[in-house]
Order: sequence, then C-alpha cells, then structure tokens
Amino acid sequence: MARGLAMTWNVYLSGEIHTDWRERIIDGARDLDVRFSAPVTDHDASDDCGVAILGAEPDKFWHDHKGAKINAIRTRKGIADADIVVVRFGEKYKQWNAAFDAGYAAALGKSLIVLNPPEHQHALKEVHAAALAVAREPEQVVDILRYVLTGKLPG
Amino acid sequence: MARGLAMTWNVYLSGEIHTDWRERIIDGARDLDVRFSAPVTDHDASDDCGVAILGAEPDKFWHDHKGAKINAIRTRKGIADADIVVVRFGEKYKQWNAAFDAGYAAALGKSLIVLNPPEHQHALKEVHAAALAVAREPEQVVDILRYVLTGKLPG
Amino acid sequence: MARGLAMTWNVYLSGEIHTDWRERIIDGARDLDVRFSAPVTDHDASDDCGVAILGAEPDKFWHDHKGAKINAIRTRKGIADADIVVVRFGEKYKQWNAAFDAGYAAALGKSLIVLNPPEHQHALKEVHAAALAVAREPEQVVDILRYVLTGKLPG
Amino acid sequence: MARGLAMTWNVYLSGEIHTDWRERIIDGARDLDVRFSAPVTDHDASDDCGVAILGAEPDKFWHDHKGAKINAIRTRKGIADADIVVVRFGEKYKQWNAAFDAGYAAALGKSLIVLNPPEHQHALKEVHAAALAVAREPEQVVDILRYVLTGKLPG
Amino acid sequence: MARGLAMTWNVYLSGEIHTDWRERIIDGARDLDVRFSAPVTDHDASDDCGVAILGAEPDKFWHDHKGAKINAIRTRKGIADADIVVVRFGEKYKQWNAAFDAGYAAALGKSLIVLNPPEHQHALKEVHAAALAVAREPEQVVDILRYVLTGKLPG
Amino acid sequence: MARGLAMTWNVYLSGEIHTDWRERIIDGARDLDVRFSAPVTDHDASDDCGVAILGAEPDKFWHDHKGAKINAIRTRKGIADADIVVVRFGEKYKQWNAAFDAGYAAALGKSLIVLNPPEHQHALKEVHAAALAVAREPEQVVDILRYVLTGKLPG
Amino acid sequence: MARGLAMTWNVYLSGEIHTDWRERIIDGARDLDVRFSAPVTDHDASDDCGVAILGAEPDKFWHDHKGAKINAIRTRKGIADADIVVVRFGEKYKQWNAAFDAGYAAALGKSLIVLNPPEHQHALKEVHAAALAVAREPEQVVDILRYVLTGKLPG
Amino acid sequence: MARGLAMTWNVYLSGEIHTDWRERIIDGARDLDVRFSAPVTDHDASDDCGVAILGAEPDKFWHDHKGAKINAIRTRKGIADADIVVVRFGEKYKQWNAAFDAGYAAALGKSLIVLNPPEHQHALKEVHAAALAVAREPEQVVDILRYVLTGKLPG
Repeated sequence: MARGLAMTWNVYLSGEIHTDWRERIIDGARDLDVRFSAPVTDHDASDDCGVAILGAEPDKFWHDHKGAKINAIRTRKGIADADIVVVRFGEKYKQWNAAFDAGYAAALGKSLIVLNPPEHQHALKEVHAAALAVAREPEQVVDILRYVLTGKLPG
Repeated sequence: MARGLAMTWNVYLSGEIHTDWRERIIDGARDLDVRFSAPVTDHDASDDCGVAILGAEPDKFWHDHKGAKINAIRTRKGIADADIVVVRFGEKYKQWNAAFDAGYAAALGKSLIVLNPPEHQHALKEVHAAALAVAREPEQVVDILRYVLTGKLPG
Repeated sequence: MARGLAMTWNVYLSGEIHTDWRERIIDGARDLDVRFSAPVTDHDASDDCGVAILGAEPDKFWHDHKGAKINAIRTRKGIADADIVVVRFGEKYKQWNAAFDAGYAAALGKSLIVLNPPEHQHALKEVHAAALAVAREPEQVVDILRYVLTGKLPG
Repeated sequence: MARGLAMTWNVYLSGEIHTDWRERIIDGARDLDVRFSAPVTDHDASDDCGVAILGAEPDKFWHDHKGAKINAIRTRKGIADADIVVVRFGEKYKQWNAAFDAGYAAALGKSLIVLNPPEHQHALKEVHAAALAVAREPEQVVDILRYVLTGKLPG
Repeated sequence: MARGLAMTWNVYLSGEIHTDWRERIIDGARDLDVRFSAPVTDHDASDDCGVAILGAEPDKFWHDHKGAKINAIRTRKGIADADIVVVRFGEKYKQWNAAFDAGYAAALGKSLIVLNPPEHQHALKEVHAAALAVAREPEQVVDILRYVLTGKLPG
Repeated sequence: MARGLAMTWNVYLSGEIHTDWRERIIDGARDLDVRFSAPVTDHDASDDCGVAILGAEPDKFWHDHKGAKINAIRTRKGIADADIVVVRFGEKYKQWNAAFDAGYAAALGKSLIVLNPPEHQHALKEVHAAALAVAREPEQVVDILRYVLTGKLPG
Repeated sequence: MARGLAMTWNVYLSGEIHTDWRERIIDGARDLDVRFSAPVTDHDASDDCGVAILGAEPDKFWHDHKGAKINAIRTRKGIADADIVVVRFGEKYKQWNAAFDAGYAAALGKSLIVLNPPEHQHALKEVHAAALAVAREPEQVVDILRYVLTGKLPG
Repeated sequence: MARGLAMTWNVYLSGEIHTDWRERIIDGARDLDVRFSAPVTDHDASDDCGVAILGAEPDKFWHDHKGAKINAIRTRKGIADADIVVVRFGEKYKQWNAAFDAGYAAALGKSLIVLNPPEHQHALKEVHAAALAVAREPEQVVDILRYVLTGKLPG
C-alpha cells in the first residue's frame, strides 16, 4: 500500500534521567510523525517543585509528597495521551518510578517498550512480561518507531 | 530534553464566580499552550437560563432545576475534556456545586487542583485528599501550569 | 471571563426526517463553533442502502436488516463523537429509532436534548427523565447551544 | 461436555405491561438458573410513584418527571446487572420507553432479544439491527434461554 | 409479575453525621433486601484515624490529610459497590464532603437520591440536577427503596 | 440537510496481504474524508521485524514472537483509533490474525465490515454475526463508505 | 502464606469441539475452585439453533446468521465473566471463531491461554503474542490452573 | 450506626516475599471480613513455573519470560478483584515487580497502601503520591483494615 499511517503517534519517554537516551530517540526519529513527551528531567526542579510553588515543608516526606504530586499531573497526561510508552531503566538507583509508570501504562493497555542494560534482565522479568518489545539501545527504539510508522526495517 | 510537551493542555476552571481569579490564571498563563474553559460566570444568566429559554416555572425548585440542567451541559463537557480541573472555593456561600465538580472530576481520574483560603482547610480535607495540589493564590496555579508544561520553576 | 470555551462542540441531530428542524437549528447556530452530524435523511436511500450495495433480499426482514446495519455505522459514530445528542420526535409514526438513539446516548453519558410536540409529553416521560433539556421548537435548541457555548441568553 | 454453565444468568424483561408475556417466560424457564427482573408493571403505581412519595405537582410534566426518575432507579439496575435484556413491543401505544431501554442496553453491550408482532417489523428495523435475536412469541425466548444455558433445542 | 427483583441492592448513605437519619432509613427498610454501607460516623475517630494509626503530624493540614485518605478507602468502596447513593445535607456546616461524594457518584453513573431541608434548595440545585430523587425526610427514602424493590407505594 | 458529516473517518484495513484490495478501496474512496491505516503488508518485513531490530533468535517460536509483538504495536493503534474496521479474508491460508483482529475490534465496539469470497461463508458465520456489513468486493466497501459519509448510493 | 487465593476462578474453554480436550481439563482440575464454561459443543445444535427456534431460512447465510447470533449470547457471557480464556486450535478446519474469541478476550484484557499443535505455530503467532501461555496438551493447562490457584508445580 | 459495612473486602498483598509480613497482616485481621490474595511466594516455583509446565528454554530471558507471564495470570486477577492493594517494599533487591503492581493498581483506581522501611522514603515518593496510606509496620495495615471495616481505632 502506497500510503502509510496518517495518524500522528504520541510516545511518552519515562524513566532514567541521567543519560542522553531521550535525545538519541528524538533525534533518530526526527523524520517521523511522532510527538514525544516526557517527565521533567531537571532533577532539582523535579525534587523541589512542590515546595517551590506551594510553600516549604519541614518534613522531608511532605516535601517530597508535594513535589511528586505535581509531577504526577504531567506524568498522568503523558501516559494517558500516549500510544507507546517507552520506559528506560538505567544502571543505578532504585528507579521505582519507572517501574510504577510501566505498571500504570500496562493497566491502561498502552503499548510498552522497555529499554534496559542486560544485567537487569532477571529483575525486570515481570515488567518485560507486559512489554511488546525489550531493547538495549535507544537506536533500537527508533528502529521500532520507524518500522511501525512506515514499515521500513534498518539496513 | 530540549523539547517540551507538544500537546495542548485543557484546563477547566470550576467554582467561585465573584472574584477575578480566572482572569488572573488566564492572564498569567497566556504564554502557555493551555485552552481554558469554565462555567457561565454571569450569575443572573446562570440562574435563569432554564426559564429564559424553555419557559417560566411558578415553582422555584423547577425554575432552578431547568437552569441547572442546561448549565450541566457546559460543565460536563468542560470536565470531560479537561486534563486538569481547578476548583476554587471562595470565602462565602455554600459552594456545593464546586465540591460536586471536584468529586465528579476525581471520579473521572482528572488531575485536580484546589484553590481555597486557609480558613476552609479542615472543611475541605476530603476534597484535598483527592487533589494533586492545594493552593491559596491563583498565581500558584499559574506556576503549576508553567512547571508541568515547561519544567520551569518560578523565581 | 472574557474568553469563552475554546473547544468545538459536536452535536448529533437524531430522529424525525420529514420537517426542516435540522436546517433551522443549523442555520440558527451558524455563528457558533458547532459541528453537526445526523443520520442520512433521504428516506428511500436509508431504507434501501443495504440491498443497493450488498445485493437484493427476497425477505423484507433481511432487506431492512442489511440497511439498518449500514445506517448504524453512521449513527454509532455520530453519537459516539457527540457532546450533545438532540432527539426530535415528530407528530406521526412509531419513531422507535429516535427513542433507541436517546437510550443509546444516555447510556454513554451524552448530554441529551429532546424536542417534541406537547401531545407526546406523557409517552416520552422516561426519555425526558434522561434529558438535560426538553424543548418544543428548534429555535430553543439554538438558544441552548448559544448559551452553553457563549453564555448569552436570547432577547 | 458433561457440565453446563455454572453461572446464574440475569435477564431483564423490558417493555409492554398489558399482557402476560413475562409470566409465560418466567414459567417456561422455571427449571433454569435464571434470575429475572423487570420494571414495576402496575401501571398506576408506575405513573404516580413520584408524587405519591415526594409530593404532588400541579403540572403534569413534573408529575410524570418525578415518577419516571424513580422508575429509572429500578430500570438502570435491572439493565446494568443483566446478561440478557428482552424488550417486548406490544400492538398498541408509542412504547418509547421500550425502545429507549433497547438503546440503553445496546450501548452497554448487553445481549438484546426483541419480541414483537410481525406488523412492527419495519418500524423496529434499527432496534432489530442491534439485537441478537428477534422473536414473536415468549416461548421462543424460553427456548433461547434453555439453549444458551443448557445447549438443548426444543422438540 | 409475581416475583420481584431477586438481586440484593447496595445503598451507600453519605453525608451528615449528627442526626439519626441513617438509623431511620435502615430501620424502615429492615424487611427489604438491601445492604447498607456508610462512612465512619464517629466524628473524632474520623478526624484522627490518620495520626492514630500512622503517627502524629504537627501540621493540621497533614493531620487531616492522612485521616481523609484513610477514610477515602472506605468511601470509595462504598460508592463503587453501590446501586444507590443517598446524600444527606443537614442544616449546618459546609458539608463539602457530601457534595463531593454526590459528584463522585454521579460521574460513576450511580442512582443518586438527595435528602435536604428546604432552605438548601437553591444552593443544591446543581446537585439536584444530577439526582433521580430529592427528598426531605428519611422515610421518603425508605418509600423509594420499598417501591423500587417491590413496586409497593405507601398508604 | 445540506451539510454532511464534518468529522474525518478513520478506517483500518485488516487481513489478507496478497491482493490489491486495499488499493482498490483507497483509490475508490479518494474523494472522501477518510484516513486509512493498515498493518505492514510487506510479508518478509512483517515476519522478520522482531529479529532484525532486537536480535536473532535460534528458536522459530521466539523469532515469530518478537516480530508479532512489534506488529501488535501498529495493529493496536490502528484498531483503537478506527471508526470502522474492515477485515478481508482471502482464499488461502489460515488467516487467524484476521479473525483475531475482528474479535478485538468487535470487543471494542468498532463498526466491523467483513470482506470474503462466498466459499468462506459458513466458516465465518461467527465473525459475520458481529459485523455490520458482509461484502464480497472491495468496491462494495467503497460504496458503504461513500454512503455513510455522504448519503449517496451507487448508480 | 498459609492461605491460598479465596476467589473462585472462572475459565472459558473456547475453540475446537471434536476432541475431548475440555473433559481432560475439567477432570484434571476437579480438585480446584474453578468454574468452567464453554460454547455449546453439539455441532448440529450449534449450527441449527437459530432456525430451530426462530423459524427456517431458505438462504444459508441467514440460516447461519440466526444461529451464530444466538450462540453469541452464550459466548459473550462466557468470555465477559471469565478470568482466563483458553482457546484450543485443532488440526483441521478454519477455526476462525476460535481466533475471533481470542481477539475478543484479548481486547477485554482477559488472561489468554492458547492450546495448539506445533504445526500451527507460525500461523498463530499474532494470537500467541497476546497470550500469557502457549501450551500443547490440555494437561499443561491443568498444571497452569493448579499453579496459579495453589502455587504448586507438577512432579 | 449500629451496623457496619456488610460487604466482604478483597485485599491483595503484593511485593516482598522474604519476611513474614503477609502472615502478620492475615493473622491480625482474622476477625475481619477480608479475603486476602497474593502472588505465589515460593521463590523457586515462581521463577521456574514457566519452564516446569511449558518446557525448558536455553535462553534465560525466555525462561524468565514464560514464568513471569504465568505469574501474571495470578497477579492480574488478584489486583483486578481487589478493593485494596497493599504493596510492601523490603530492604533489599530491585523489587521492580512491586512498583509495577503499584502502578497497575493505581491506574485501575484501586485503594493503594504502601509498606516500606524509612530509608526508602525518597525513592518511593512517586509511589507514595498515588497511595492512600504509607505505613512502616504490617500491624498498621491491620489497624487500617480494622478501621475502614468497623470504624474502630487501636488503643
């Protein structure tokens, strides 16, 4: 068929914020009709947004709580509007927010792509079981996007 | 990530109609990709729309009923289309329609922001429990919108 | 508030096809941001579409069945996409399709406006119970649309 | 397979209230694991329940409105809990509530069985298009229930 | 029809906690197949449950917040499982939690009955617009329950 | 009514990939406001996309599994966004993916059109039971699209 | 944990009707708290139920159509009520109804187990992609049921 | 009110499997009308269930994948049927499955209780933002259950 899919695709990029994986996906997909969204990736802003806007909290729990709820406004819309949710697990940290987003997306029936280094394979098996693709490199995510939008394979 | 969220956000501004809080939010957010909606804020029109269009009622209950149902056409769409519902409680009146809208929005899974003066804190605790943010000033709502759309914090 | 609702409204016009009530609503609302849809109102085409496209049927039941199902493709989308469903009951005929559409719309939570002559009041009481407005004249529907979109009342 | 379906079936019997069709179905199905529900079939009680409980109304519209809404409490639950909704159209009257129930049930994805005399075939074609069976006699509905519960055909 | 509805009805009794209206409804309906639920009506326990179980909070906002969220566990299930939600507004206090519950129930499509003294009529018009019945006395709620379950009217 | 439906229609073309039926529908409908989507119809790319992007698999089951899941990303969005799903069964092969898509679309309440040669009539009876039209030629699908969009019948 | 899952599991057994696979699963699971359901497996009754109950049809298409729709009443409830849908593909026939049920179950988010001989592996890859288990023998399905209900593995 | 809630509560206990927290909750709540469910907590069975039932896999990824999918059958039902989902994070391991379950439960609107040691507070802030209670000890979960079921507070 000559014509491809005419719809714009919405892709939410969840998870690790310390490497350039989002840029690599967005750059790689710049010729595709994809609209990307993501959480706020400025670590300090993300941690402090609650108290910066709504007032200081002496207790760290409520400091974090206020911020996490404001961030949830962005995350919820990002996932709710997405056709595809990509969740990246990096090498360090607990990253429970990434796994939480994966579960949230799965329950909404979103197409889930998981991106992680091989050493996390066993610990991520339940997340992988809900995914439609498990990749190691951001460029593989680009290849998937190109294929599902245009039918073209790499190489 | 260089690019922000590409999606337009829909925000419904529910509640108190006697001060300029809606204008302050709309003005403050005029550089953001937000589409605002709200109930009809002309008090007399809102009270009398039912009988003005569909015919007079001798009984005040049905006078109000006809009007409230026509207003519900607008409210329902405003909330159903919204990503964020902001509910403002003022200092006076019962404002049960504001709390009703908050409950309606919460049940639909909308992100809820509550705006109220401090003296209402205890009476609003159940509404606050369903909210992602509780603010005192309209400018704080603008700050939240700016942050969730662009990642930028005030100051 | 200076700005009105920024969203386009979708309105489905269901029911009676022998008078000009749809034209009166569409003409009256031509300055409003409303997108109207409706069933096919050519009576013969509507009755015969099934056999005209998919082949003749000797049995009237299946002749009608094939047509009614093709018409359902249009009706379903019209109602599913609608913010408001207006259902008009005329003076004659059984008009069970109109009542069916009203029930269908109500179950989907659509805002329902019923338009009927006064002599049908008692027979329509269950339909009225699910409606947000009951009108007699198409111009009242226009007034409702103008009010819910712009906050302006007639006169 | 030796064992049949272990689940109880819920069947809602909507529509005409002037003949004994409900009794014929309930009697015919008394050996089956079916739980029937239905609207209040006492015509006077159904018409007057609103004012009898909540107070008189001088205007017939509101008299009917109050009653129709109380009846809707029963109808909604009957349909919401049903696996199968049977809608009977009799020979007389407008019966828009029956068609409304059929539309409501269809939108909820309920299995719909329509029961009507042959002279209503053409006027009911849109309702039939949403049905899984169209019958003329209550005993055919019993045969359908027996077949879908036990796999046994008549005769 | 000889047999009534075979289903148990679930009724959630929301709102005012300072008078005996719940007892009057439960007592009046003791011959009916109804399962009632309600919020915790011990005012002190309801206010303090959060800190009593999860630890003290110096800030009243968070003291209330912890409690309101635990109470929400009960309220959510009560409403989610209900066929009918009765919301009682008393003569005093803000009662925003009652209006919140009404909005929440309405958005879930629950059958809503509102119980309030006449002086609140105008302030409750938006809540009334979503209700299937508006009553003044608990005994009227019992009459509605008896009618929708058995078809019998009072007197 | 002078104006037709203003909404764009989304149509997903599922099933057989060895003949030019998609082109015939797309060409025939080129004057209509329809946005088509479809699976990747390059057989080799479709079979091998999983291993080509995510790495080789020695076991044919997992080779196929990886590919089928990536293809599901496209199929799911195609069906989820569609107003109408057309499923074509050709003369050869098992075509279980076509029947799977038909079931998936039916469960989501999509309007289903089935296209098949007459020899498959009996084997497709359960799929036909869920369809709103059963056609033999792609041009009949075009006729249906033209009719539901514009009200015009062929000839 | 000493106590296992207290909930009864509902399992729908869809697909091939010419071998004893259902009996083998039901017998193997007779010590488990599982409630099985299935389509009518009497081939002749299943083919003829429509005309046997609702009257003969001269056209084979409508003969089959009437029957398939009555069978759909049973299938829909079976799948809708199920926690797990097992779909068995045998060695012969088109079995499009089995694949249709698999798609229908997948769209509803049911846990899907597919049972098929190895020669169908490639043709079923899209169905397998939606399944949580792919088995060859009915006893493996019993082992899965025993494990998910009790945590016990075979051997 | 004399009578408490008449409904049985379903509680799913997700997360850490190396300590006796489930037993402590179940024992503490043995006088309450609660039905508990949980994942299979035998670590080896949980890891190997896929290959034990469906055949060995040389590749660890697919070994884990088969098992994780079978475990998902149990987890999905546990969460889907639950009124409350309790998620316990222990001191060790990645525990991404616990966070995944929390996200899944949150997206379905389940009441979420999180149980974790204080050192995980910051890393769990997004999960806490979706919870209705955050506890440190299993006995606090019992206290919450007792309170929401009976209204009684500890001490």
